[in-house]
Amino acid sequence: MFISELIPVKKALDIIKRSLKPTDVEEVPLEDAYRRVLAEDVESLLSSPPFDRSAMDGYAIKAEDTFGFSESNPAHLKIVDRIGAGQMSNVVVQSGEAVKIATGAPIPSGANAVVMEEYTVEDGNELQVEMSLPPGENVSPLGEDLKRGDKVLESGQILRPQDLAIIASSGYDSVKVFKKPKIGVIITGSELVSPRSELKGAEIINSNYYTVKALVESTLALPTLTHCVDNGEIVEEAVLQMLETHDAVITTGGTAISKGDVVVDVADKLGDVLIHGVAVRPGKPFGFGKIQGKPVFMLSGYPVATMVQFDVFVRQALEMIQGIQRELPVVRMKTGKKIASSLGRTDYIRAKTHGEHVSPIKISGSGIIRSMVESDSYVLIEENLEGIEDGEDCKVVMYDSLRL
Amino acid sequence: MFISELIPVKKALDIIKRSLKPTDVEEVPLEDAYRRVLAEDVESLLSSPPFDRSAMDGYAIKAEDTFGFSESNPAHLKIVDRIGAGQMSNVVVQSGEAVKIATGAPIPSGANAVVMEEYTVEDGNELQVEMSLPPGENVSPLGEDLKRGDKVLESGQILRPQDLAIIASSGYDSVKVFKKPKIGVIITGSELVSPRSELKGAEIINSNYYTVKALVESTLALPTLTHCVDNGEIVEEAVLQMLETHDAVITTGGTAISKGDVVVDVADKLGDVLIHGVAVRPGKPFGFGKIQGKPVFMLSGYPVATMVQFDVFVRQALEMIQGIQRELPVVRMKTGKKIASSLGRTDYIRAKTHGEHVSPIKISGSGIIRSMVESDSYVLIEENLEGIEDGEDCKVVMYDSLRL
Repeated sequence: MFISELIPVKKALDIIKRSLKPTDVEEVPLEDAYRRVLAEDVESLLSSPPFDRSAMDGYAIKAEDTFGFSESNPAHLKIVDRIGAGQMSNVVVQSGEAVKIATGAPIPSGANAVVMEEYTVEDGNELQVEMSLPPGENVSPLGEDLKRGDKVLESGQILRPQDLAIIASSGYDSVKVFKKPKIGVIITGSELVSPRSELKGAEIINSNYYTVKALVESTLALPTLTHCVDNGEIVEEAVLQMLETHDAVITTGGTAISKGDVVVDVADKLGDVLIHGVAVRPGKPFGFGKIQGKPVFMLSGYPVATMVQFDVFVRQALEMIQGIQRELPVVRMKTGKKIASSLGRTDYIRAKTHGEHVSPIKISGSGIIRSMVESDSYVLIEENLEGIEDGEDCKVVMYDSLRL
Repeated sequence: MFISELIPVKKALDIIKRSLKPTDVEEVPLEDAYRRVLAEDVESLLSSPPFDRSAMDGYAIKAEDTFGFSESNPAHLKIVDRIGAGQMSNVVVQSGEAVKIATGAPIPSGANAVVMEEYTVEDGNELQVEMSLPPGENVSPLGEDLKRGDKVLESGQILRPQDLAIIASSGYDSVKVFKKPKIGVIITGSELVSPRSELKGAEIINSNYYTVKALVESTLALPTLTHCVDNGEIVEEAVLQMLETHDAVITTGGTAISKGDVVVDVADKLGDVLIHGVAVRPGKPFGFGKIQGKPVFMLSGYPVATMVQFDVFVRQALEMIQGIQRELPVVRMKTGKKIASSLGRTDYIRAKTHGEHVSPIKISGSGIIRSMVESDSYVLIEENLEGIEDGEDCKVVMYDSLRL
């Protein structure tokens, strides 16, 4: 089945999204959970701080004992205990008494304020307090940060350093996350060889091997790569093998629309080709199908088209199957140049930003890797626009904001 | 040696930067080089494409043979060979001849243009060409993308997917990168315990263990973590042990300025304390020293202060020792609220952005982990400002833009 009409990008994305299912959930030690995708809502098992806590180095006292006193007329108290962080006092503080206390230690029973060292004079067990304190001064009350039962995080977010801190403080040393999707990548092309300093005949270096591996890694998924010559049987075998142990398959090469090309033929034989050709530039010959219930993304073999197709069609899908919901990270900038496009086609134009301005870079074919290296962004021209005038606002997607 | 005067952030950063030396260089396989830091300039060993290449599926011909012809008056040629991608023809194309050619294949000798299939009619070995082509049409000339000897990448950049493609196309299957710095992290605090669902006495959960590990990982460096009670001898031993096998050490806890606290005492004994106390909020009790020629960053034990000190003082240093030069990624936004500060002090205010607006979040102590979780950015108020008025422009650092 070959589609002759190019479908819009949005329609292609809808077809892809309907074909996805999320990866399984696994439990990992909290210390390995940075940048993993949370697969549960987290509720705190604990209150934090777990007790009224001193916010300063000083003396725990009854605030009432200081009322009306000052530097010129200090209150006189007696030190009855001394505790560091990690220690607690069994003393019940009475009127006229003080307990020396370190930052973070529990306020002893009977005390309701902490006077900072700076406002005291200590002499043996005698303490002068040179100010009047309100109750609660320098006390972090139990549960100020977290209360037992509070929902602290929601499923679907990528865990940041501070998120791990709040999970730990909630009482957990492990956490449920979505499994990283395993992605089989099949690079097709009889002419492709690994990098070497001299090339023979029609050999071309297989640069997509590195690009697609890194692109998959940039979504937090786990790639396995292989290379096939342009032979239907060999490609078929590779696809079937990858499907056995992977959540999705990506191919590059063999998707030309003018004729039945190897990869699309194989997908058509093994499953359903749902997309073949999208109104996007670069990257028109994009294919998508389902084989054995799993998504198969068929990308062009041309390096630039491969990258754009990945960013437009594959990236979001790999995010979604691991539970991540996010929009394309679009910012608005001013163009320094008129940019032409066609109604009905979405253009992803390689561009370079300078502050709040963006300029398309000079390019020729879609095989030009240098254009990918010299650019840092796409100018996105949606299908309802015929182009953008010089100096006009446009939508820009920074490459770096695509990476997870 | 304890510094009583708080030094400005900029001065502290200068002291730190002067104390750093870069990590060694190692060679890694190109397929493992994504997000590594390039430690050499890369010059291409090859031209790419390595030959004049067909940009289309079609027929390689002499353009001159089509001059003046059209759909109603097609040129008649003879097909003398057929080549796919990865194949090359040994034929020398003569006037009146054509070679069927796939996209990407080398243009046979004698030919100088490719006519797309769409503009031809093939009948056995007879070919009708229904248009007039200029020389060079649909030919990607040798070296169009890269020329042998071109400098394609510069040392110090973090390798993106497309950078790997250009290194491969330049003829290399491995690349020199800076070694990932190994960072020893010592969390001090007798009261700290691993996460559990019930706490006894003065126990506090060691959330910094997870935060600092992740923060170090967010700079691409490799952390090793340990936990020590507040005991000078034990901390000293831990510092010495970490220094043996790591490029730098980070500690948390034991840096209070009011008295000689454990960690700073140890650093003072083993080496030189160069910074102790910075005019920054939160995070004032930051310490920095050199022991055995290696940098030792002494962070506060309070979770928020730890994170801010890491972002302000440690992050840039860990980037620099692996060859990365970048400025703090500051964007400008409008505040929705007046923010107070003091002349001479730099404030990093936890905030939440909404489009182009930013609002400080409600917080109390620097122990409040939830404030880190609910915020996505710092409002940065530099030392020469007394604060920011409601609706005024201010500097914002998005947490996510700090991560490498």
